[in-house]
Amino acid sequence: MKRLTGSAREISQILDAEYAAYAKSQDNFDGIVAEIIANVRANGDVALREYSEKFDGLALTSFEVSRETIKRAFDTIDPDVLLALQNAKENIESYHKHQVEPGFVDAQVSGVIRGQLVLPIEKVGVYVPGGTAAYPSSVLMNVLPAKIAGVPEIYMVTPPQTQFNPAILVAAQLAGVTKIFQVGGAQAIAALAYGTESIPKVDKITGPGNVFVATAKKQVFGQVGIDMIAGPSEIGVIADSSANAAYVAADLLSQAEHDKLARAVLVTDSVALADAVDLELEKQLQTLPREAIARASIENNGRTIIANSVDEMFDLMNEVAPEHLEIALDDAMTYLPKIKNAGSIFLGHFTSEPIGDYYAGTNHVLPTSGTARFYSALGVYDFVKRSQFTYYSQDAVAAATKDITTLAYSEGLQAHARAIEIRRGDR
Amino acid sequence: MKRLTGSAREISQILDAEYAAYAKSQDNFDGIVAEIIANVRANGDVALREYSEKFDGLALTSFEVSRETIKRAFDTIDPDVLLALQNAKENIESYHKHQVEPGFVDAQVSGVIRGQLVLPIEKVGVYVPGGTAAYPSSVLMNVLPAKIAGVPEIYMVTPPQTQFNPAILVAAQLAGVTKIFQVGGAQAIAALAYGTESIPKVDKITGPGNVFVATAKKQVFGQVGIDMIAGPSEIGVIADSSANAAYVAADLLSQAEHDKLARAVLVTDSVALADAVDLELEKQLQTLPREAIARASIENNGRTIIANSVDEMFDLMNEVAPEHLEIALDDAMTYLPKIKNAGSIFLGHFTSEPIGDYYAGTNHVLPTSGTARFYSALGVYDFVKRSQFTYYSQDAVAAATKDITTLAYSEGLQAHARAIEIRRGDR
Repeated sequence: MKRLTGSAREISQILDAEYAAYAKSQDNFDGIVAEIIANVRANGDVALREYSEKFDGLALTSFEVSRETIKRAFDTIDPDVLLALQNAKENIESYHKHQVEPGFVDAQVSGVIRGQLVLPIEKVGVYVPGGTAAYPSSVLMNVLPAKIAGVPEIYMVTPPQTQFNPAILVAAQLAGVTKIFQVGGAQAIAALAYGTESIPKVDKITGPGNVFVATAKKQVFGQVGIDMIAGPSEIGVIADSSANAAYVAADLLSQAEHDKLARAVLVTDSVALADAVDLELEKQLQTLPREAIARASIENNGRTIIANSVDEMFDLMNEVAPEHLEIALDDAMTYLPKIKNAGSIFLGHFTSEPIGDYYAGTNHVLPTSGTARFYSALGVYDFVKRSQFTYYSQDAVAAATKDITTLAYSEGLQAHARAIEIRRGDR
Repeated sequence: MKRLTGSAREISQILDAEYAAYAKSQDNFDGIVAEIIANVRANGDVALREYSEKFDGLALTSFEVSRETIKRAFDTIDPDVLLALQNAKENIESYHKHQVEPGFVDAQVSGVIRGQLVLPIEKVGVYVPGGTAAYPSSVLMNVLPAKIAGVPEIYMVTPPQTQFNPAILVAAQLAGVTKIFQVGGAQAIAALAYGTESIPKVDKITGPGNVFVATAKKQVFGQVGIDMIAGPSEIGVIADSSANAAYVAADLLSQAEHDKLARAVLVTDSVALADAVDLELEKQLQTLPREAIARASIENNGRTIIANSVDEMFDLMNEVAPEHLEIALDDAMTYLPKIKNAGSIFLGHFTSEPIGDYYAGTNHVLPTSGTARFYSALGVYDFVKRSQFTYYSQDAVAAATKDITTLAYSEGLQAHARAIEIRRGDR
């Protein structure tokens, strides 16, 4: 991996420039996506059928994936995969249930009640890519938090296939999807945002997709809510001489194999470890089925940053704000207070990042490209909205009238003041 | 107001078309804003000075508003306004403290620890408009939730003035802003997103502004987090024959006076009430200082929808998903379970919406244009991010190996599987 020494600010500037270049590279599909959305909005199912023939080469009579097709998926799925999905589901549920947020009420002042309802979003659409990027684990990660939030209607869309990956349909069913529709690309996002004869209009759309899907999500944002737009995957590892170089290399490669643009960053205070990790990377790459992708990622975007102290390791990594952060230090848990920005944290030499991708129950839909500075993992909180409520009695309004009208008049908003005064009989 | 009868779906389609038209009208400034952002990014303070001379007619030597200027604001502010701001601050704090979210840890399985840290965003920028749209109440509403979330650095930006509104500076100081900079427009947003010699780069930007500010926020989104982009203000009132027509009219006008594009919607099952409200609107409009604005809003965007039953009133209003919702019914609190989409709810005949704008302590930064279907009021939750953490012991990894590698192999991600297997000595 490229080796850097530098201040946190320098590292941050290098990364910002790279993220900006990536974002710009995603901008070239605005026109075609806008056209697709307008067509779906105007022509509904007719437009969806047209795109299905054109892009997927399939003439569909119905968009909904039938009960029989889903049942057949249960018959054909590898039993080990089914069991693993069931176990993963349990772990995801037990983790995400901690995120359920109660409402509150505050009735401490006479005549005044204030509170907050936490209400599920009513209708959610989940996009699931087709082909080789069809990950059943992602189906669980997107649907289960919505389910736990209490979302009553969850619609999954996925590109039409002559033969669906049974694990995708099984995961959807296990997670409790309401209906599955076979429609993909920007046209699927448009259908969920505006509704068609077959596809219900939803309130929020989540789930990963290619550049057409991502561009469409950006364009319908406002009409519906969306989750974050994911960039390439990233892993950051903080390691010292106590770390096992083979483990560290294996974990860096587990993200590098996703995408040539994936980013692996090692921050260490040990040059010996950095050297050993480089040797291990080469060794492990040579037998990796996805070697070409992983090698391109490691060579182009892999970075080793040498720090002078433990504090500097954390300062540097907090600037990176990685999607996944491994702490390959002894007594890793004790360093939690030093972490300011990271999507998901993996503590200690044995907690390999793929444990979180598949199994631990934490979510694997995470903020990329440094957005962990202000974004969180997908969670139950993404599928609710909080509604404030207030009650004031006639006496309570009277007691507050002077303060309220003083502020309203000072801001030049007389109708605001009058709405209060009229309750007191002043008008 | 225009009177409608129609199904929830019809109402929703009318509103969607209007929101889309509004959004489109805001799109014409992309080019000029992109140019401003690029200039600030490249030239920092030099660009800011250039824009200050050009747009504000002021040649600035320093961007930071001095301690002396802030002190002078305390000397010159109307004492009644100061007291009202202090009281409002207390109410906002006591309400928002209920939103503070603890982290959690789950250590129920041997060898496995999972949890979630709730970390404040490190640096936040708050935009405060200048001129007549300078609302000290909005300063409190944006800054106090960030403060309660534990954000250590909060920077306020506001357009340069020869004479600042003292209430703005006092509100900023009361709320605990770190520094105030006099820079406005798209250039202020660019400065906060990328940093200049004088202005710190932040992680998230909140606060309302004109079309240049809103467009700039959209363009820097991704580089930094942003709050929602607010559309024109809205109020929805559900009222029956028990409602006081004069109160209802006064409340509709309190939002209508904000903006010609503001939207007032009355849903009622009483034609007599609808008629009485129309009469009251005309009567109250005639003496309103901001009559022209409020009249344009009521005539162009005001709507009365006649419903046939209580349930239909709520169904219709849930489609509107109003920013502010008043329930002008007897026993208003008992109707809370019928509300699915609303930013802030005001219960009963005396709880006039401006109570929430200024005083109750609930936030007045709210989702507009139907986005209450998926967005919430600004709150403490907007100024934190949740970081997941996971620890697996060597034994726990071993026990989970089969499930994890089964899923990894089934998804074609061998490096993921190997990172687990290597921990067990399988490789």
